[in-house]
Amino acid sequence: MRDFLPADKSRRERVLAVIRERYRAHGFDEIETPVMEEYDRLHAGLGADNEKLAYNILKRGLDADAIRAAAHDPAALTDLGLRYDLTVPLARFYASHRGELPGVFRSIQIAPVWRAERPQKGRYRQFVQCDIDIIGDASSRAEAELAVATLDTLDALGLEGGSIRINDRRALDWMLDTFGFAAAERAGVLITIDKLDKVGPEGVAAELRGRGAVDSAVSAFESFLGRPAAQGLPFGEQQIRAALPAGAPDDVVAHLVGIGDAVAAARGGADIPLVFDPFLVRGMGYYTGTILELAHPSVGYSLGGGGRYDGMIGRFLGQDVPAVGFSIGFERIVDLIADDADGAADAVVLVHDRDVPVGELVAHKTRLVATGARVRLETRTKNLKALLERAAADGYNRFALVGAQTDDLEIKPLA
Amino acid sequence: MRDFLPADKSRRERVLAVIRERYRAHGFDEIETPVMEEYDRLHAGLGADNEKLAYNILKRGLDADAIRAAAHDPAALTDLGLRYDLTVPLARFYASHRGELPGVFRSIQIAPVWRAERPQKGRYRQFVQCDIDIIGDASSRAEAELAVATLDTLDALGLEGGSIRINDRRALDWMLDTFGFAAAERAGVLITIDKLDKVGPEGVAAELRGRGAVDSAVSAFESFLGRPAAQGLPFGEQQIRAALPAGAPDDVVAHLVGIGDAVAAARGGADIPLVFDPFLVRGMGYYTGTILELAHPSVGYSLGGGGRYDGMIGRFLGQDVPAVGFSIGFERIVDLIADDADGAADAVVLVHDRDVPVGELVAHKTRLVATGARVRLETRTKNLKALLERAAADGYNRFALVGAQTDDLEIKPLA
Repeated sequence: MRDFLPADKSRRERVLAVIRERYRAHGFDEIETPVMEEYDRLHAGLGADNEKLAYNILKRGLDADAIRAAAHDPAALTDLGLRYDLTVPLARFYASHRGELPGVFRSIQIAPVWRAERPQKGRYRQFVQCDIDIIGDASSRAEAELAVATLDTLDALGLEGGSIRINDRRALDWMLDTFGFAAAERAGVLITIDKLDKVGPEGVAAELRGRGAVDSAVSAFESFLGRPAAQGLPFGEQQIRAALPAGAPDDVVAHLVGIGDAVAAARGGADIPLVFDPFLVRGMGYYTGTILELAHPSVGYSLGGGGRYDGMIGRFLGQDVPAVGFSIGFERIVDLIADDADGAADAVVLVHDRDVPVGELVAHKTRLVATGARVRLETRTKNLKALLERAAADGYNRFALVGAQTDDLEIKPLA
Repeated sequence: MRDFLPADKSRRERVLAVIRERYRAHGFDEIETPVMEEYDRLHAGLGADNEKLAYNILKRGLDADAIRAAAHDPAALTDLGLRYDLTVPLARFYASHRGELPGVFRSIQIAPVWRAERPQKGRYRQFVQCDIDIIGDASSRAEAELAVATLDTLDALGLEGGSIRINDRRALDWMLDTFGFAAAERAGVLITIDKLDKVGPEGVAAELRGRGAVDSAVSAFESFLGRPAAQGLPFGEQQIRAALPAGAPDDVVAHLVGIGDAVAAARGGADIPLVFDPFLVRGMGYYTGTILELAHPSVGYSLGGGGRYDGMIGRFLGQDVPAVGFSIGFERIVDLIADDADGAADAVVLVHDRDVPVGELVAHKTRLVATGARVRLETRTKNLKALLERAAADGYNRFALVGAQTDDLEIKPLA
């Protein structure tokens, strides 16, 4: 967990303001839920491995008997936990407030989540997630709106050139069936396939055999991976079918093609910023259809991802509702944003002698604030140069010296 | 704890953006600390009654022996807690990062805090605090900057006419000494005096006697409360001295007068928006000097408050540093703000037939978004009127119908 000093906090708030503004422009509505959810809800199997990483809240008013009784059941010591993602709270929120929301609900959530992970580079135990979700729309319109809003937001942040890798869990499942993997081993096989980028086809085949997967299925998969790749096709039906074994399900292909057409129509330009990747897996068990990942040429890792989770809302509502979401990787994106945007604003430091009456000082400051400037008061010290350098480093671009006799400020640029 | 639906969340974010922008203009810098602090730090006696209300985090990986051993010491089950205010984290932050901060550090903190209170009207277990603090300035310049920034922010929110009640803990202490209360009973006497507005002079005197306070001191206090009030004096030395027993300490009076002069000079106008209240107490034990409370003619309760706490930073740093803070009552203020500001923005709902290709829809939407509008797609239903009314209620002010043959959108106002 981190403290944010002024320069970092200012950059974070600037990035959040752009994200919020762009998502709102695309018709999404921001909501907020409490940081704590009931323990049972956080541990209902929807959070996968993240459930184990939840911070749990100690029950209030526990007596000695209650504590002793919980010796073998620590969960009895807690009733609430900090959320580890924004998807479980959203499902709970939607189930609670459905009647007050539009038929198709497009939500924004910008908020911190917590995971009790061992610290490692680039991972934090408190971090901000920025999620958009569309609940109540089973059509490819939903994925297209998510993708277009996300790419537009990336553009607005000065990160043009983003693209989206896309796949569909149903295509993955069908492909594994086709190769001859058993349905029961699907989850394990997907975990292995997810490593394809890292370990290559041979590594994947070896791991699958190590797992005890049906040998004929592994061989079929290996020979499919080794086929000559169809190069240079743009995103579309032909390319998707070429990337999958023959006979891919028409509805899945049509859904993907629909997303591509819409993103292409919205983004204009010759290149469709979509890449079909038949081996994109994404970890969360709750995905039921499309899965998406945001890529940018400046970095080798993804800048966000999401997918369709048509089954989850039903767990809370007792009635299936289609849903698809996209989470932009705020912590990764904020690291890519330059620190200079504030320099453009007018910011004046007023360096005053000790004998200037406080009333005059604060009046000078207030008059300048009223002109639209940002103003800091500094008591003059012996080392004026150091004081002005410090102010410049903090983003101030002008200064004036104020003495007891100063009526009109002479404001000069800070070198 | 509350969920915030889109209209509420949008209003909250609008208010926060104004507060943040105004505080920044006045030279304050925003920081952020993690929501969790170490248990020992939260329970070091600086949080007064709030310490008992902290939500504590269950330690990870507790085994049966560790749980049993904690039967009579529940604190052994926890190592972290959610902050109950923003002042304790600020003191910890300043002690950690002092070398990276300006000599006089003006901080903004806008963030949620948590208290495990029994729910009652207008009180929440998660709520947002908006604090500004000035660390490193013992002069009245600091209080004046806080007061002027706060009143300017209230103006910017459309809540003109705010004023600040002010007192000084040193004046209170001196007054109690003068009446003859013992130093040891001071804290209890202050708790009783704090009820003066509610129970009146007789109620206060009765409660003080009930507490067993020295009778001659209670009588002296009673006769002081019963003296003829000096009416109609503006804020200033004459009025402050008239409101206190004779012989009030010069340094305390001068500090208060300095704040008043500065606020008057900054705010212009004939009326100084300060009211000296010799019986203003404010609950927190850590106040050492000036105490402030924000009032507004539209409500009978305070909209925020703060004070000087010169001793607290020293607890963390091992070296005394002057500090003064003001916390604006965000949850109370947001309830006073009208819900209409978003209506001014251009927001268009596109109501489309089911057979319009997704690509055309999303392209229409994106073109409109590029013009600066906020755009929502809605699939046409039988009851078009209800659909448009819903959109209008959500802040949309224009609409267009989109059919399969629509090339140019005909955008009309939403009645």
